[in-house]
Amino acid sequence: MEYQFSERVKSLKPSAIREILKNSSDPSVIPLSAGNPAPDAFPQREIGAISAELLQNTPIEALQYSITEGYTPLRQHLSAYMQKKHQVGGERDEILITSGAQQVMDLLTKSLLNEGDTVLCEAPSFIGSLNTFRSYRAKLCGIPMEEDGISIEDLKKALSTEKNVKYLYTIPNFQNPSGITMSLEKRQKVYELCRDHNVLILEDNPYGDLRFAGEDLPAIKSFDREGVVMYAGSFSKVVSPGMRVGYAIGPREIVQKMVVCKQGEDVHSNIWAQIVCHRFMTQYDYEAHLQGLRKIYARKSGVLLKAMQEHFSPLISWSRFEGGLFAWCTLPESIDMLEFVKKAMERKVCVVPGTAFLTDESAPCRSFRINFSTPTDEQLTEGIRILGETAKEMA
Amino acid sequence: MEYQFSERVKSLKPSAIREILKNSSDPSVIPLSAGNPAPDAFPQREIGAISAELLQNTPIEALQYSITEGYTPLRQHLSAYMQKKHQVGGERDEILITSGAQQVMDLLTKSLLNEGDTVLCEAPSFIGSLNTFRSYRAKLCGIPMEEDGISIEDLKKALSTEKNVKYLYTIPNFQNPSGITMSLEKRQKVYELCRDHNVLILEDNPYGDLRFAGEDLPAIKSFDREGVVMYAGSFSKVVSPGMRVGYAIGPREIVQKMVVCKQGEDVHSNIWAQIVCHRFMTQYDYEAHLQGLRKIYARKSGVLLKAMQEHFSPLISWSRFEGGLFAWCTLPESIDMLEFVKKAMERKVCVVPGTAFLTDESAPCRSFRINFSTPTDEQLTEGIRILGETAKEMA
Repeated sequence: MEYQFSERVKSLKPSAIREILKNSSDPSVIPLSAGNPAPDAFPQREIGAISAELLQNTPIEALQYSITEGYTPLRQHLSAYMQKKHQVGGERDEILITSGAQQVMDLLTKSLLNEGDTVLCEAPSFIGSLNTFRSYRAKLCGIPMEEDGISIEDLKKALSTEKNVKYLYTIPNFQNPSGITMSLEKRQKVYELCRDHNVLILEDNPYGDLRFAGEDLPAIKSFDREGVVMYAGSFSKVVSPGMRVGYAIGPREIVQKMVVCKQGEDVHSNIWAQIVCHRFMTQYDYEAHLQGLRKIYARKSGVLLKAMQEHFSPLISWSRFEGGLFAWCTLPESIDMLEFVKKAMERKVCVVPGTAFLTDESAPCRSFRINFSTPTDEQLTEGIRILGETAKEMA
Repeated sequence: MEYQFSERVKSLKPSAIREILKNSSDPSVIPLSAGNPAPDAFPQREIGAISAELLQNTPIEALQYSITEGYTPLRQHLSAYMQKKHQVGGERDEILITSGAQQVMDLLTKSLLNEGDTVLCEAPSFIGSLNTFRSYRAKLCGIPMEEDGISIEDLKKALSTEKNVKYLYTIPNFQNPSGITMSLEKRQKVYELCRDHNVLILEDNPYGDLRFAGEDLPAIKSFDREGVVMYAGSFSKVVSPGMRVGYAIGPREIVQKMVVCKQGEDVHSNIWAQIVCHRFMTQYDYEAHLQGLRKIYARKSGVLLKAMQEHFSPLISWSRFEGGLFAWCTLPESIDMLEFVKKAMERKVCVVPGTAFLTDESAPCRSFRINFSTPTDEQLTEGIRILGETAKEMA
């Protein structure tokens, strides 16, 4: 039988990057390309205890059908917590529990976007989200990043020239892949500009709790009095990604449409995981846990920085990062980035070519992304040494 | 701020039925409208033991990111099991683990359907799936059901007159809502007709293991030598719906597109639940468990049948059902079905009006759906008594 695929799926091209990375699961490869939380970051004992108690005492609650909006005690607790701690969410907002924050990107796009509508995004930006937008045939318009976040001049230009812009997608804290944090001034400016152009902001904040240097900055959502911002949060980096629990906090009118879409996608998210997240937040010292995570990643990033100073300087430069899981490294003009990544792969060190994160994969790019949470300390040091050597040879 | 929703979401109208059912979560209401497995059908002790062992010995496996295709041991075991037991899946097929079978409907539709393309479905059919198809702006074409399954004459007509038909959606076993099982002859005929018209079959089989009378019939997928059938399976009715684990077995080429779409929706399904399903199937006597479920539902359906014979006959009739969770009941012409459902709701008995399951909710319909797995025996008997009395008063 011959199959006819939808236009939206036909337009998803196989990525050249996949080809490069296809051996990255080989256990002899040093994995600097992933985005996994460090294994010692999981509250595994606590999750084991909560799960045992739950399946012993109220198993039906954890195993029966639940409601699409999410586990009510988790929704209530999270709403109050995010409001109190981050001033995220107000009177006009609603919360929806999703199957990872990825589903927030999907449901918002499904609710708002007609084929051909425009999504503004940071350039570079998270490939997973870009691909979700592409799967609804969004026209992606990349706005260049600067050291303090998205270029306001370019954003202004795009807002006044692009047609049918539905939202701006931004990761303000320790952005994936660049590691860049948007300054307070730019957060305010981005909010005002989008509001004035009647363009929604999709604020994705998976890494905000993983700050290990500098000062916390307010979420863009915390300025929101006019229903401009949809905030996406996630337990993937702070509890467990395998559980697939994320959430959206945003204008009630939009969240209600997202609920209808979610019902058609997966009815509701795994309820065991939702209850575990709720009990972990309320029965344990959640703030102490977050503090512990910051220590883990401060130490890991220290190992990376030391190795980069020794083996990268001055040939390969990197952007300043105060949190998160990634470092964004840039090669000198004399080295072809894709050649470098291929050569590193031959030497069993896997990093992600920067082109993977662009709206146009064929655009010129001299950067690559390093993840420091997945590899062991030894892998990290050895991987950076090999990358440094490779660059020296190619320069 | 004013919001502009996508055309696909704008076209999802609020349902008149929701209004009728909105009080169904009131605990004083007898719930004959749900579709929950019976609480005693969950293998809660086994799940508790598996989960404890898993979170004790290999917690990282259960908590870390996993791959989109699904947990490899579960995929391998399920493939072999479905092939051996049901002749489902062959050389040209691939398996994908999904977040409930609902996600199979979503991913297949996303992969195949352009807006305005046609989906053929049984009339009546499962409202959840119909809404998923609608969310991609499918044109739904309902084919009438007969006592032995879909009308072959009407299917033939639709296949030759409808434009851009992408697939036929069918639930061959104990269909939701009608309880009807498609005969062997019709299964073969449906397969041949769709194959000859180059139309895919989406075979949804959530209830197949819940047969408590009659003989098992082969899956339509078991005839498939030409890559015509996408089979959707689920652990929701046989292990736990709250876990959200389903699967698709179908042509590799299509499954690969569905994997790309799934990556953009939720990256992968909750991995703890996938491992639990795998270990429950392989470390326990799974066939004995299924046998136990059939006993539970045989008994429950017996309670329902006894009550219907006493309180419904001869005013209200019902379709023969040999398994599943539902009975499809039909009122005499003298009674307005929607009025009847409203009156029952006032008397705290909640059933689903048959119009909910039609492609056109405003079409005439004298039937309603009863679920017998959610209520207790006492609720079931009392609910049927009240429904019978209501009908007698209205006749």
